[in-house]
Amino acid sequence: MASPQDGVVVAVDANGADLGPAEVAAAAAMAAEQGVRVLLFGPADRMDPAPGVEIVDAPISIAKAADPVRATRQEPGASIVQAALAVAHGDADALVSGGSTGAVLAAGVLRIKRAPGIYRPALAVPIPVPGNPVTLLDVGANAEVRPEHLVQFAYMGAALVQAVLGIERPRVGLLSNGEEAIKGTPLVLEAHAALTARVLESASFEWVGNVEGTDLTSGVADVIVTDGFTGNVTLKVMEGVSQTMLGAVRDAAMSSRRSKAGGMLLRPALRDFRDGLDPEGAGGAYLLGLRRLGVVPHGRFTRYGISRAILLAARGVSGELVERTHTALEAAGALKSSPMSEPASTVQPS
Amino acid sequence: MASPQDGVVVAVDANGADLGPAEVAAAAAMAAEQGVRVLLFGPADRMDPAPGVEIVDAPISIAKAADPVRATRQEPGASIVQAALAVAHGDADALVSGGSTGAVLAAGVLRIKRAPGIYRPALAVPIPVPGNPVTLLDVGANAEVRPEHLVQFAYMGAALVQAVLGIERPRVGLLSNGEEAIKGTPLVLEAHAALTARVLESASFEWVGNVEGTDLTSGVADVIVTDGFTGNVTLKVMEGVSQTMLGAVRDAAMSSRRSKAGGMLLRPALRDFRDGLDPEGAGGAYLLGLRRLGVVPHGRFTRYGISRAILLAARGVSGELVERTHTALEAAGALKSSPMSEPASTVQPS
Repeated sequence: MASPQDGVVVAVDANGADLGPAEVAAAAAMAAEQGVRVLLFGPADRMDPAPGVEIVDAPISIAKAADPVRATRQEPGASIVQAALAVAHGDADALVSGGSTGAVLAAGVLRIKRAPGIYRPALAVPIPVPGNPVTLLDVGANAEVRPEHLVQFAYMGAALVQAVLGIERPRVGLLSNGEEAIKGTPLVLEAHAALTARVLESASFEWVGNVEGTDLTSGVADVIVTDGFTGNVTLKVMEGVSQTMLGAVRDAAMSSRRSKAGGMLLRPALRDFRDGLDPEGAGGAYLLGLRRLGVVPHGRFTRYGISRAILLAARGVSGELVERTHTALEAAGALKSSPMSEPASTVQPS
Repeated sequence: MASPQDGVVVAVDANGADLGPAEVAAAAAMAAEQGVRVLLFGPADRMDPAPGVEIVDAPISIAKAADPVRATRQEPGASIVQAALAVAHGDADALVSGGSTGAVLAAGVLRIKRAPGIYRPALAVPIPVPGNPVTLLDVGANAEVRPEHLVQFAYMGAALVQAVLGIERPRVGLLSNGEEAIKGTPLVLEAHAALTARVLESASFEWVGNVEGTDLTSGVADVIVTDGFTGNVTLKVMEGVSQTMLGAVRDAAMSSRRSKAGGMLLRPALRDFRDGLDPEGAGGAYLLGLRRLGVVPHGRFTRYGISRAILLAARGVSGELVERTHTALEAAGALKSSPMSEPASTVQPS
């Protein structure tokens, strides 16, 4: 059966995954069975061939490099660099790597490069909170941002959940220390004002204004925008708390024979929650703002998780994520080089 | 039996608590039984007298004021303002209010005023993570801070857990998006460098460097320092995630008769965790950096929680929290007006 992903080519870096290149090759074979074509970069002698998967021998790995930017520059033959170059040259439509987020970010920015008019790339993670999934960005590509970056992140995140998760008109919120528009740092206040000014007429998403930390799990927004510092802390706090509560359930379940049975039944529900909160869970982290989409599944994923990341990358391509982002930003006058880079209300003489 | 709190006088604002002034009066009576003297400000006709409790009729409440700073200025007769003035004039040693954090912050800063050499007050919340209690500050007094503020927060938080929680040599960490010293915003990098330069010789706490979001529950630090924006988001994320997981346990427990029994046994453990994470739980939020200590129990606390807040405020007084903070900051050359306000290594000609 034909699927929208048929014919999409995804460049996959086989180095860096905890289970090794063979597991990534198996994932590539699974994705290829669904109609995605895969260019697989890694040690050829450690990967099995499969229909729809083209193996490119690239044994050098920089997944563990302490300085990914330097490693990207110094190791042009590294698998992630080769995979990124294949995307940059148009041989593939998207990039997937089971390696480190840092290496993907470096290779993506240096080789695929930013999309026209984008200030900064961002890492977005869809968090499958039970009943209230939410996509958080930036979770760490940029420790510091300016208001116009947050504005672009809002459009980038909205386009992601539209194209990949199929949410037609996502609700987008800005993370702050209070719901009122007057709450937040100067950065947040300015981004809030800019989004309010721009989004009024926009059909591409619903702007819900400031949201609070409790709203990561409350379901008031499909996309929550923040700087990479706060986003990183937020994601890791969620991970830590869910991990700790899972431990508390385990301990409580061990406290008596009666609770043990109940605890064993409850644990999977909580474990799913914890796993979903993984920084690179739910298909992985999405690297947005480049000329092509990048997806970073977690290093510890098995072939199932990695193949899902490849399929979701292909879905982003067929859903025209990059084009959709550009169109929405252009319509909002929020592209970097656009003469409309200020909202209309502020460029007219007052 | 004599206790260290004997003779300590705490000014208590009876307005603002969800259960009303009568509940706060009952809490005051309980604290007085432990040897604390209480000056109780609120509507005299709604509060029962008790030994050791002196009632001051102050019926006006600004606990629900939208603009607490303005309300503090415009309502000099308000109970929280009167209570703060009693502390400012030396009639009481510490301030406790069951009202809003905003009102306490405003009345505290405007009437009790900052301690000499303190840049900014901070709100600190001891979070009783099971097995790994941690005190987080600032959780919202300052949305934006400078590096020297974070340095002071480290000393203020350390003195709090020494004086009130009895941790002799607390481990203090700085919240960042990575453990390495090179991780973080310019603010965090600068605060990290300043703390590293100052704390080397200090005996007052152990500086553990950067900590991550997962470390809110990992037990690597007794005190975690951050700006009020990140701290507020962090605390609310913890609240939201624990609340959501408690709901997931409830749902899972309802899914079968067998799991129901186990679920009922597990719920208290998780509920304790959730309640502990309350923004003003664990005795309440501590307002640090003023000439006297302030404590804000959560508005929904019963007499037991509020009396605990009064006792902990008294413990902070007898533990010489304010003096301890000043001494440590002075020794570190981190007071505002100090000629040693830069670490020695940077004031010497190089």
